[in-house]
Amino acid sequence: MTSDREPHLTRRQWLTSAAVIGGTAVAGGSLGGILHHSQGATTASSTSDEPTDDVFFGHVREPFYGPHQAGITSAIQAHASYLGFTFHPHATATDVVRTLRILTHDAALLTQGKGALADTEPELAHTPARLTVTVGFGPEFFDRAGIPHLRPPHLAQLPSYRIDRLDPAYGQTDLLLLIQGDDPTSVAHAARVHTRQIRSFAQRAWTQHGFSYARGTHPQGTTMRNLMGQVDGTHTAHTQASDEHVWLRDSDGDRHVGATTFVLRRIAMTLDTWDEVDRPGREDALGRRMSDGAPLTGTAEHDPPDFEARNDLGFPVIAPYAHIRRAHHPDPTVRIYRRAYNFNDPPTPDNPHTTGLLFGSFQRSIPNQYLPIQNRLAELDALNEWTIPVGSAVYYIPPGVREGQFLGEQLLT
Amino acid sequence: MTSDREPHLTRRQWLTSAAVIGGTAVAGGSLGGILHHSQGATTASSTSDEPTDDVFFGHVREPFYGPHQAGITSAIQAHASYLGFTFHPHATATDVVRTLRILTHDAALLTQGKGALADTEPELAHTPARLTVTVGFGPEFFDRAGIPHLRPPHLAQLPSYRIDRLDPAYGQTDLLLLIQGDDPTSVAHAARVHTRQIRSFAQRAWTQHGFSYARGTHPQGTTMRNLMGQVDGTHTAHTQASDEHVWLRDSDGDRHVGATTFVLRRIAMTLDTWDEVDRPGREDALGRRMSDGAPLTGTAEHDPPDFEARNDLGFPVIAPYAHIRRAHHPDPTVRIYRRAYNFNDPPTPDNPHTTGLLFGSFQRSIPNQYLPIQNRLAELDALNEWTIPVGSAVYYIPPGVREGQFLGEQLLT
Repeated sequence: MTSDREPHLTRRQWLTSAAVIGGTAVAGGSLGGILHHSQGATTASSTSDEPTDDVFFGHVREPFYGPHQAGITSAIQAHASYLGFTFHPHATATDVVRTLRILTHDAALLTQGKGALADTEPELAHTPARLTVTVGFGPEFFDRAGIPHLRPPHLAQLPSYRIDRLDPAYGQTDLLLLIQGDDPTSVAHAARVHTRQIRSFAQRAWTQHGFSYARGTHPQGTTMRNLMGQVDGTHTAHTQASDEHVWLRDSDGDRHVGATTFVLRRIAMTLDTWDEVDRPGREDALGRRMSDGAPLTGTAEHDPPDFEARNDLGFPVIAPYAHIRRAHHPDPTVRIYRRAYNFNDPPTPDNPHTTGLLFGSFQRSIPNQYLPIQNRLAELDALNEWTIPVGSAVYYIPPGVREGQFLGEQLLT
Repeated sequence: MTSDREPHLTRRQWLTSAAVIGGTAVAGGSLGGILHHSQGATTASSTSDEPTDDVFFGHVREPFYGPHQAGITSAIQAHASYLGFTFHPHATATDVVRTLRILTHDAALLTQGKGALADTEPELAHTPARLTVTVGFGPEFFDRAGIPHLRPPHLAQLPSYRIDRLDPAYGQTDLLLLIQGDDPTSVAHAARVHTRQIRSFAQRAWTQHGFSYARGTHPQGTTMRNLMGQVDGTHTAHTQASDEHVWLRDSDGDRHVGATTFVLRRIAMTLDTWDEVDRPGREDALGRRMSDGAPLTGTAEHDPPDFEARNDLGFPVIAPYAHIRRAHHPDPTVRIYRRAYNFNDPPTPDNPHTTGLLFGSFQRSIPNQYLPIQNRLAELDALNEWTIPVGSAVYYIPPGVREGQFLGEQLLT
C-alpha cells in the first residue's frame, strides 16, 4: 500500500498557492471563508489508493486525539448517523472494556482516512471528509461496566413531558455512536464497520440518519434551516454556550475533566398542519423572520432579541408563547450547546411522522442546564403545536483520549 | 423581494478571476477539473435572499428546458429521492394533465433556485445545487390518461426472475419523480413540495433515498463505490452507452423523439455474508480489482476487460460467472445507460436488508437492451449470491419540454 507517487496538490493547497500568486484583496477575502471552514482540521497525506486528481475536501480530517472527543463543538458536518447499542445480556465488564478498545482503535483509523482493523472495504474510508466518531454512555452502561459508583449524578432518562409521544424504538441505549462527516459514503462505511466489530458484545437498537446543508452549498457559518423552513439554532449554537457550559471540570471529579453530557431528542414535525399557517403566523410562533432568521425586534439573524420591545398597541413584539422567548432562560448560566440535524426518512403506512429534527444538546449538567430550558418549552411554546417528541435518550460523553488510551479509560482503569 | 445589493462574486466567478490573475500552469490545470464538473450547468444570479458570502456550488443549476429531461445523462448528483405515485381512483384524464402541468411548473422553478407556486418555504429552494426533477410514466399511466394506444410497446413490468424477492412496497406505480441534487436539503424540499402540490390527484406509494459521494470529495468523473466496496458501474456508465442507446427517435414515432425508458431495481445486499468473502474471492466474483476497479486483465479502471485472457493453468482470468462478463452482452447494440445510487436506510426488526443499490437503467428499448442483459445476469452472476432484488418498476420518461409546455404534452395534446 505504498507508492512512489508524489503527494498531489490538494484543492486546499492549491488555493493557498493561488492566494500567494494572486495576492489581491479579493483573493484574500474569499479565502478567509474557505480555509477557516474546518478549524483545527488537517489534510490527509496522499496514499496510493486515494484519488489522484483535485478534490475540495474529501481528504480533510478532524483530529481524533485531544482533551475532548471530536464532533461536539467543531463546525457541523453535512451528515450524521446516530447509532444506539445495547450490550448483550451475557456481556461482562471485561467485554465492555473490549468494546471500547475496539471502537477507539477503529475510530482513530477511520477518522484519519484509513481502513479499520480487518476492514473488508478500506477504500470506503479513504476520503473521511471530516468524519468524526463520538462515543457516549447511557445510564445503564455504568452498571454493565461494573462502575455504578462512577455514574455522573443525574445521568438518567428525562422526566416525561405532556408533549411527548415517545416511541420505544428510539429509546435509551447503553451506548451511543454519533458518526458525522461531510460525505454520506464514509459515514455509512464507519457505521457498518463499527457495528460489525462490536457485534459480539453489543447490538444496534436503532439508527437515526440526519443531514444539514451539503458542504460547499452555503457559506461557512451559515445556520441550517430545518424542514419547517426556519433558520434553526441561531442563538444556542452560535452566541450563548461557551466552554464553561459544555465541559465537565475538576470540581466534577478528576475522571470527568473534558467530558460532557448529551441529550438526543427525535422531534417529528407535523408538516401538513404547518402548511396551513401563513407567514406572519409562522413568524409569530417562532419570534424570528422566516426570510433570514432575524428576531422580530431586529434586522439581522444574529441581533440579540429584545424581549421587552412592544408594538404600537402595547403588545410584546416577540409573543409570550414565541419559541425563542421560551427557549431563552433568564439565568445566563442556563445555556446549552446545540447540534441538530434534519431527518427525512421514507414515510411508512403505519408512521407518517418521519420528517423532523434530530435535536442534540451538549451541556455540563443536564439538570442544571437542559432541564430548565426543556421544562419551559414543554410548558409553553407555540411550536409544540407542530412538533412531537418521538425519541429521547441521554448519554455521558467521556473525555477525549491520547494515543494508546481508549475512550472511557479515565473511568475504567 | 428585490435588492439594491450588487450580485456577489460566486466561488466559480472568483476562480475564473483567480486564473486570470494567476495565469499559471498549475492554476489552469486545477481549474479544468472544477469548471467542467457540471457541464451545461449555469450559475444562478444573486437575489436578495440568497446567501451573500462565498459558496462553491449551492447556486449551480441544471437547465430545466431542453430536448431531453434533465437528470438522465448529466454528471451524477450526490443525492437522489425516488418517489412513486399512484393516481387516486377518482382521478380523470383531465386530472392527469393537471398533475403534469403542476409538476412541470414547479420543477421549472425549483430546479432554477426559486420557490414553487405557493411555496411555504421558498428559502429551502434557493440553493438548488444541480437539483433536477425527472418525471416518468408507468404502464398504467397511459390508461389513466386516456391514451392507451400511445403506450410504448413493451412498456410493462419485467418478467419474474428466480433471484427476485420483490416487496410490493416497492412495486410499480403510475408516476415516478426522480429528484436528484448535490444538497439533501433542497432535494427534501422539492420532494415535499411536489407531493403536496399534486395530492388532490395522486398519492405517494413509496419513497426511496439514495446517495453517491458528496460533491467535492472526489475528482470529477470518479466512479462511485457501492456499499460492498466495489467500483460500481464503470463500463455501463462511462464507455458503452451513447445517444443511440438512450433516446427514442423518429422511427419510434414523432411523439416519442427525445424520450427514454427507465428501469428501477432496488437491490439489497447481504453484507453479513459478503463479509465472509476474502479479497481474491471478491475480485473473482466481480472480475475487477477491489483496490481501483481495474478489470482482472488490466491495470486501470477504464481498461477494456479481455474476456479471452487465460491464466497459466488455462482458465479464464475473468471467470465465466464473473459479474462483468455476465453483464457484458456480446451484441454491441445491447447496451444500457446506468445511473445508480447507494441506499442505506435504518434497519428495522422485520427487515434487515436495508442496505444496497438503487440500480437505474435508461435505454431506448427495455426488451431490446435491458432484458437481454438482465436475463444473462439472472441466469448466472456470482454477485447474485450477495444481492437480492427487492423492488422493481419501469417507466416511460417523456421528452423534455420548452417553456410553456408541460411534461407529457407531446402525448396528451
